[in-house]
Amino acid sequence: MAGSGEVRNIPAYTIPSANRQVALVNRPGGIPQREDFALRKTSIPEPGPDQFLVRNIYLSVDPAQRGWAQTEANYSNPVQIGEVMRALAIGVVVKSRASTIREGEFLYGSFGWQDYAVADSPKILLRAEYPIPLEQHAALLGIPGLTAYLAFTGLGHPKPSETVLVSTAAGAVGSMVGQIAKLSGCHVIGLTGEDAKVTKCLTDFGYDRAFNYRSADLGVVLDESAPNGINIFFDNTGGMILDTAIRNMAVGGRIIQCGTASIAAWSPPPIGPRNEREILTRRLIWSGFIVLDHFARFQEAAAKLVEWYLAGKIRCETDIANGIEHAPGAIAALYSGQNRGKSLIFIG
Amino acid sequence: MAGSGEVRNIPAYTIPSANRQVALVNRPGGIPQREDFALRKTSIPEPGPDQFLVRNIYLSVDPAQRGWAQTEANYSNPVQIGEVMRALAIGVVVKSRASTIREGEFLYGSFGWQDYAVADSPKILLRAEYPIPLEQHAALLGIPGLTAYLAFTGLGHPKPSETVLVSTAAGAVGSMVGQIAKLSGCHVIGLTGEDAKVTKCLTDFGYDRAFNYRSADLGVVLDESAPNGINIFFDNTGGMILDTAIRNMAVGGRIIQCGTASIAAWSPPPIGPRNEREILTRRLIWSGFIVLDHFARFQEAAAKLVEWYLAGKIRCETDIANGIEHAPGAIAALYSGQNRGKSLIFIG
Repeated sequence: MAGSGEVRNIPAYTIPSANRQVALVNRPGGIPQREDFALRKTSIPEPGPDQFLVRNIYLSVDPAQRGWAQTEANYSNPVQIGEVMRALAIGVVVKSRASTIREGEFLYGSFGWQDYAVADSPKILLRAEYPIPLEQHAALLGIPGLTAYLAFTGLGHPKPSETVLVSTAAGAVGSMVGQIAKLSGCHVIGLTGEDAKVTKCLTDFGYDRAFNYRSADLGVVLDESAPNGINIFFDNTGGMILDTAIRNMAVGGRIIQCGTASIAAWSPPPIGPRNEREILTRRLIWSGFIVLDHFARFQEAAAKLVEWYLAGKIRCETDIANGIEHAPGAIAALYSGQNRGKSLIFIG
Repeated sequence: MAGSGEVRNIPAYTIPSANRQVALVNRPGGIPQREDFALRKTSIPEPGPDQFLVRNIYLSVDPAQRGWAQTEANYSNPVQIGEVMRALAIGVVVKSRASTIREGEFLYGSFGWQDYAVADSPKILLRAEYPIPLEQHAALLGIPGLTAYLAFTGLGHPKPSETVLVSTAAGAVGSMVGQIAKLSGCHVIGLTGEDAKVTKCLTDFGYDRAFNYRSADLGVVLDESAPNGINIFFDNTGGMILDTAIRNMAVGGRIIQCGTASIAAWSPPPIGPRNEREILTRRLIWSGFIVLDHFARFQEAAAKLVEWYLAGKIRCETDIANGIEHAPGAIAALYSGQNRGKSLIFIG
């Protein structure tokens, strides 16, 4: 296809003779580590009927990949040993046998950690066609932005002057939730694990208060900064932060469980203080959120997020590594909090 | 007032010279026991402006009284040592200085464990004026019936053919939930702690399946009877039953936390398996329900429950002791599962 003239407006993209892939080679017990993956080369596949071939430009690194790599019951089938690691990516269509997909289009979808993927339309999350930088389609309009917007508005039901607590407040999702909560007129408290990120929460993301949960006495801090209780807790961590926060919820509060980053392994099941009485006496609504359930609202969310972005009301940071060799260690780096913004790998 | 002609249509009720009261005399560590209460006699109070005097006929015994007698943070202020035990009751108005309350009216409200109460309108839950037996105003239309109807329909959002699990399935609330779930077209599974109650669930309350959780292997039983998962779990117990049920919920399932009867004491906080990952991966909605929040819907619920009752579509059993001396031990009896239907004490 290279030089055939069918690949429009993407002069930099040619088709090399091999396809680099990052495959899962060990079943991780907890958070997937560098040695659980291996880089290999295979031939470039050909799309079949109703399929297309996409060349990936940005590989995405997402917390959900931990679950995809594990065998415990989850919201999707686990990646098999020897398979390409399941991942989102932004790529360009270089060959299409699907009537609704044209060559040269940029897409954001489930294309795996590899140079080339054969895919069909259901693998696409969004067409990467908004007037924003290409990589922001995997950040502002990617899992982080869509999750933040759809979970916070759809399950949080924020009202002006309510108090919102966000764990992983400076992270890719959390920083967006904090900003959307402020845009909703809420009083917003952030928790993060580093002093530098506390500063970032206050200066860059507009949090009213922010604390380092590793050094603060969380119970005292929440008592003081949410004297009338927390109305919405957007939780990406679970564990001890959740245990403390739930005991500081206001009556009628909403907890949005979006991740459980603080728990390294679920087998055997870890234990903690029982929460059913807190749910009952505080009349909480505790909901789980997985963004892929909410496909039908992606366009609506994207339109709003782009509007805010172009108006300078929201920012979305990206942390971009260069080269596919960064992929194997990227999930572990994410869970240790090393990234600054949405983690991506440029392989274009 | 006795013989004054002002007490209409209630010939049996005269005004004795004293008011028997059941007072809280010890702060219970867990479930309130007989010795935490004492019977005493005081004089009959006089209603002030906008107040009325009610003579109680049926005292109600409700699981919520455990929380009212304890000091831990709860949804209402604890009863003080020396005070009359907070309780619902059905009584008749014998003197009124409130413009909207007439003497001779029957009321269901928060009148305490005593012969006579001075009260004002906010203490009334419902006027006991429906064409059903008087005691059913504290059962079918009391906390049990209102809780079952409002929690199950309001938080459960039942759809025909969904699978519903009910703990304390033969209890005052649970037996109503099971029947309402059947009336909603659901497949209904009940859990109870006695073989005789299992039989009752199947023969009297229309459950499709019922099990004794003390003898059954709960995980196996739920796997078999809810092969596609539980869509709605109406939980009055918490604890181990909850831990097992949550791991058998269907994606998008709803848990209604209405009680925590299996946990004897919350201080120090008991521990159990962590649930945040179940909530996340199964996208559950776990809500706490306290019926007194839903006062605005009581008339609507009562109308529907009376309609079903008069049509013979729903039954509501009562377990009536005779004499105020049964009150002190009644909460402990309730939590040990001794009652058969809504627990009431006739003191008329």
